[in-house]
Formats: sequence, structure tokens, C-alpha cells
Amino acid sequence: MGREGTLFFRVTGRDAATRARTGILETSHGEVATPAFMPVGTRGTVKALEPRDLRELGFELILSNAYHLFLRPGHAVIRKLGGLHRFMGWDRAILTDSGGFQVFSLADLCRIDESGVEFASHLDGTRFRLTPELCMEIQEALGSDLVMPLDDCPPYPAERSRVEESVGRTTRWAQRSLGASLSEGQHRFGIVQGGVHLDLRARSAEEIAALDFEGFAVGGVGVGEPFALGREAVACVSAILPGAAPRYVMGIGTPAQIVDLIGEGIDLFDCVLPTRNARNGTLFTSLGRINIKRNEFREDPGPLDPNCGCVACRRFSRAYLRHLYQCREILASRLNTIHNLAYFASVVVRAREAISRGEYARFRTLPEFSGEPDPKGCGNRVDS
Amino acid sequence: MGREGTLFFRVTGRDAATRARTGILETSHGEVATPAFMPVGTRGTVKALEPRDLRELGFELILSNAYHLFLRPGHAVIRKLGGLHRFMGWDRAILTDSGGFQVFSLADLCRIDESGVEFASHLDGTRFRLTPELCMEIQEALGSDLVMPLDDCPPYPAERSRVEESVGRTTRWAQRSLGASLSEGQHRFGIVQGGVHLDLRARSAEEIAALDFEGFAVGGVGVGEPFALGREAVACVSAILPGAAPRYVMGIGTPAQIVDLIGEGIDLFDCVLPTRNARNGTLFTSLGRINIKRNEFREDPGPLDPNCGCVACRRFSRAYLRHLYQCREILASRLNTIHNLAYFASVVVRAREAISRGEYARFRTLPEFSGEPDPKGCGNRVDS
Repeated sequence: MGREGTLFFRVTGRDAATRARTGILETSHGEVATPAFMPVGTRGTVKALEPRDLRELGFELILSNAYHLFLRPGHAVIRKLGGLHRFMGWDRAILTDSGGFQVFSLADLCRIDESGVEFASHLDGTRFRLTPELCMEIQEALGSDLVMPLDDCPPYPAERSRVEESVGRTTRWAQRSLGASLSEGQHRFGIVQGGVHLDLRARSAEEIAALDFEGFAVGGVGVGEPFALGREAVACVSAILPGAAPRYVMGIGTPAQIVDLIGEGIDLFDCVLPTRNARNGTLFTSLGRINIKRNEFREDPGPLDPNCGCVACRRFSRAYLRHLYQCREILASRLNTIHNLAYFASVVVRAREAISRGEYARFRTLPEFSGEPDPKGCGNRVDS
Repeated sequence: MGREGTLFFRVTGRDAATRARTGILETSHGEVATPAFMPVGTRGTVKALEPRDLRELGFELILSNAYHLFLRPGHAVIRKLGGLHRFMGWDRAILTDSGGFQVFSLADLCRIDESGVEFASHLDGTRFRLTPELCMEIQEALGSDLVMPLDDCPPYPAERSRVEESVGRTTRWAQRSLGASLSEGQHRFGIVQGGVHLDLRARSAEEIAALDFEGFAVGGVGVGEPFALGREAVACVSAILPGAAPRYVMGIGTPAQIVDLIGEGIDLFDCVLPTRNARNGTLFTSLGRINIKRNEFREDPGPLDPNCGCVACRRFSRAYLRHLYQCREILASRLNTIHNLAYFASVVVRAREAISRGEYARFRTLPEFSGEPDPKGCGNRVDS
């Protein structure tokens, strides 16, 4: 790695006072402006939305999950139907997570050894074995634009020896992943582990950066550790990874955390927060978080967020959104999801503008992002 | 009544061989071409859809429910927020059912006497009393275009004496409803009862037709009786009601039943079938009903209905729709609802065209509508 201006990723701007940068990912399914936030579409659908909604919101890249699609409907079915883009009706870029993290967090009786992970399906208990090679095969069948290898992601907290073991194994699995063949136009990322141990993070980052990946991800953050520790790990890794490749922090985070980590040179983010919280009635706005079920909104004729131009804010009142939520109406999930994603989209769009103007240091201290970030990472990256 | 060409309703065409007719309802929220099917939006939302979806599907009139909105969020709240159209973001016409039927079918400890109905809320057990006057007051507050009075709808089967009592009471309540004041532009319907007894139906139709209503509804069908009996009742009533006013059969039915009753001179229909069945994976198509969860669709790349132009059919495969349903994804409810409503919309649009061409007798015997109609009515009219 270390190519400046590869065909895949181009850095288009840098902030002088921080490590923030703007860039363009060139994929077979269009350009992706970075920093970017990816909505999570675990099972081949961003919950409650159609692909045209995501386009309307301006997203150029979404995340899906190889493990979940492997279990249902099966990657062979999706290959037969022309790949994941065609299957779900989305013609822009897709990153698929390998699903290793999900296996560890969802599957029962998960057993890990050097060859891979054996686990019982969280759906029906059927036993499967995921290997680095199979994870590549699944994602090759799906036709994902950005492909993630199987990694060994220990829980938090974990013994240092367990984290050390995971670093070595993650590197060996990364090497095996590189041996698998993908289709033209698919781009392979490496994943860095190392928990909250900065020396292990540094070792993992150096080992993975030495391999022939086109992008790099920081895994094992947002798994329960205090954000300050995860943040330190990300900053440490980001400084080691080659500047010419895109950097992705997996499963993070709140708007404040995203804005913070953009300042550390991170280009890509995904998180279930906007979509899952939407379904639970928690809405992110330019004025702070709102719990729409609160009685104070019962007769409130105003828009959810006066600074937002999304359909939910343009056409409906807080009183109506509260009513839908109280009645457990499906439309509540839909409108709340549209709004929360519109807000997350606006955060990265404004971050890009601030970087272009060289004003990122000021941007990231806006009161909007100054709320105490969640003490812990936002949890897992599967919106289920 | 008996005005030909009132400002409210205009008959624009008649089929020679059947009693089918086309017409236009003129409302303060736009024209409604009839025969029309109304999607059911019980709580101020047609489940899983936005108002813009309903417009895209061509609907000009939807149904909502005074009883449900009275309980939550309360008609005073909706009045304060500018009425139901504004509250739910729908600028075309709305018919509200009084909710009498729902009180009888949902509420516990429902007690009926001459003054009205006393019942316990199905939400929290709070005791309320609905009277003909209160039902008008609620709908006045909501600002519904078409307003239904409280009626006494006995279950099926019921003693003849109970049905006879309900006919008398429904007429007396209708008279009381006419005493309540509505806002300009609101149009009041009368409801005919009488169960499956044709003499009672005739008596009720004559009594209600003699009152100063702008439209007439047939209630007490689709409540569990064999369709053949409900159908006879509707035909009997339709022949008695004045031809210059719109006729509405409440809570019916399958496409075959709707097409059949259009032939008896019915102009308006509502039913939860397309929306509720959509959420249960049953899809109405030009080729018959499909249960999308069936294994045969697992790898089916074709559209749900090759003769349908809705978003679900244009952009997604049966395999994908099956996958969404199997995963209990919200998008399954949304796409299935869009399709089923598109199909019901196409049935009435094609019925109108057939009437205009004077070919309704042929249209109603198309193989598409020749399947055995459900032996029983489709059940209640609240999509919950």
C-alpha cells in the first residue's frame, strides 16, 4: 500500500489544524465522498426504507452483512439472482462486513480455532463453520464493492493474552483472505485489532498495513469499552495506517464521536444508532436528542428539527410523530429512520464542507457536538 | 334527497346491462371518481405508508376512524392542530367512520341503550359514552369530508328481534345526528341496518332515505354472514336508496366482491383486506392470490405481478419480497401494502373504464374476479 492517488481512493482535501481529510472512493457503483456515514442494512434492507429513500437522503454507500445473508437467503441464492445490488435494488456502493463480529456476539456455542469459527446459527441452531476463505467466497458471491475479511474480535474486557492472540490470528487470517480471489471491482480491506492496548494496536496496524489491502478498518472498538479508550486506540492506529488508503472505524458512533474521529483522519463510519434509535423513538436533532414519546410533544405543531429538510420534518409535526409512536405505527419507524439518517448525513456533509474550508477544528467544537459523547461505544453493528 | 346532480355528487355514466355507474364526489379536498376504494387509515395513518405514497397510488379518498382518534390522541388535540388532514399530512378527501362498529367489536363491557353506547376503552379500560351527538362533534373536530353517524350494528348471527330493534334505533340516532351541526363542506351519510332480513333492510333503507343525508351507507355486512346473504341485503337496499346520492358498502371486501357490488350500484368501498393481508404476506395479483412466504418463490427473479406497475413490482423480485417477509422486515409490510393497494386501485379504475364503455357485464365475469369470493365477509373495518 501507500499509493497516493490510487484508482480506488483519492484524497481531495486536508484540514491544516487536525488530521481530518476529504476524499473520493471510486467504486464500480459510483463515487463515494468521504468522510462518509454508512446506514446499516444488515439483511439487505436498511430497516423501514426503500433504496430510493436512501438515494433521496444522499447516501452513496451502505453497509450489509455477509453472515446474515449467508444464513438467509444464502449467498448462492443472491449470486443466482445477480448479486446483492440487484437483489435489494440498490445501484450504489455496498460494503459488507464479514460477520465475524456477529458470530462472536450473536451465535451460541461459538468456538474459535486457527482454521476459523464454528458456531450455531442464531436462527435455528444449525452448526456452521466460517473461515477466512468462506467469508471471501460469500462476499464474492454478493458482489460487494468493499469487502471485509474475517477477523478475531475479542470482547471487552478481555485478558491481554486473549487480545494478543487475536492480533496474531487476525493477521494470519488477513493473509489467508488475500489468497482468495474476488471479482474485478471489489476492494479488500484489512482489519486492525488490539483492544485498548496501544502497543498491541500499533503491532496490529503495522502488520495489517504491510499487507496488500486497498483500505483499512479499525475493529474491536465500540464493543463496550469507555469511548476515551477506544478513541485513543483509533488515533494510534490511524497515525500508523498509510495515508493514501481509506480508513474505516467499525460500528461507531454518536454524531459527537464521528465528528471527533474524523479529526483523527477517519474516512468511513457505520453504526446502528440512527436506525435502531429511530425505532425506539429517540431522535437526533441539531438541538440535541429528543425522545418523541414525551408528553410535552402531545400538541406540538412544530417540526422535529427546524434545521432539517427531511420529509419527516417538512411534512409532519412533533405531535403527529408522537401519535404514530404511541400507536406503535409502522410509519413511526419509517419517518423516524428517515429523519435520523438525514441528520447523520448532514453531519458528514457539513464535516466535509468544514474540512474544505480548513475550519474543521472549529466545526468539531460546535455546541451541537459538545454533548458528553456516550461513555461507551454504541454496541454492535447489526441492526436487528 | 333525490337531487340529480347535486353539488356534492354527480353521476357521470351508467352501464346499460347492470346497475353499475360512474360518478364524481365533489369535496373541499378535491374530486373523487367513483366507484372508489378507500384505503383504511384507522389511526390517522394507512399502515406503513406516507400520504405521498397514497397520492402516487392514485387514491383520492381514504377512511379513518373517529373512535380510535377520539381515544388517542383525542379529537380536541387534532382540532387544535388544524384538523385531521393537516395532522396526518393528507390534503385529499377523508371519510371517517363513527366508530360504533368498533365499539361493539373491540370494547369490553359495551352497554347500549337509547342514549348511546357505554364502553371501556380497548386501550386502558377507561369508561366512555359515545352518543350520536358526540360522534358528530368528534368528526366536526376532525374536519372529515364525509361523516358517518353512530349506528347500532348487531353481530351476526343475532335474533331477529335484536336486528329489528337496531333498525329502529339506527333511524332515531340518524335523526339525532342530523340535529348536530357540522362545518361547511362536511357531508353527512346515513347508515342502513337490517342484518340479513330483507324486509328489515327495506324498512331501514326507506326510513334512512327519507332523511336529509347527502349519501347512504350499508352497514352490518361483512360481519360474519355468508357473502351471498350480505350481497342480497346490499342489492335490496341499493335498489331503494335514491339514485342521485352516493352509496357506500362498509367494510367490503375481496376484489371479486367489490366488482360484484359495483354491479349493484355501489359507489364506495373500504376494507382492511389489502393492507392487513399485505402485512401477513398475502398478495392480491392479476393472476390470483399469492402467499409470498412459499418456498417456490425463494429464487424467483420475476415481479410479484407482471401486470402491475407499482414500485414493489417494478423494482423488486418475488425472491427479495419473500426474503424480506421471512426476515420480518418492516420493508416487507411497506412494499406488500403498496402492491395490494395498487391492485385494489387498479380494480376500481378498470371497473370505471368498463362502465364508461358500457361493458361492465363482461368485466365483472373476467376470470380474475371469478374465484369463489370468500364465503364470509372480510371481517371488521379497523386496520389494527
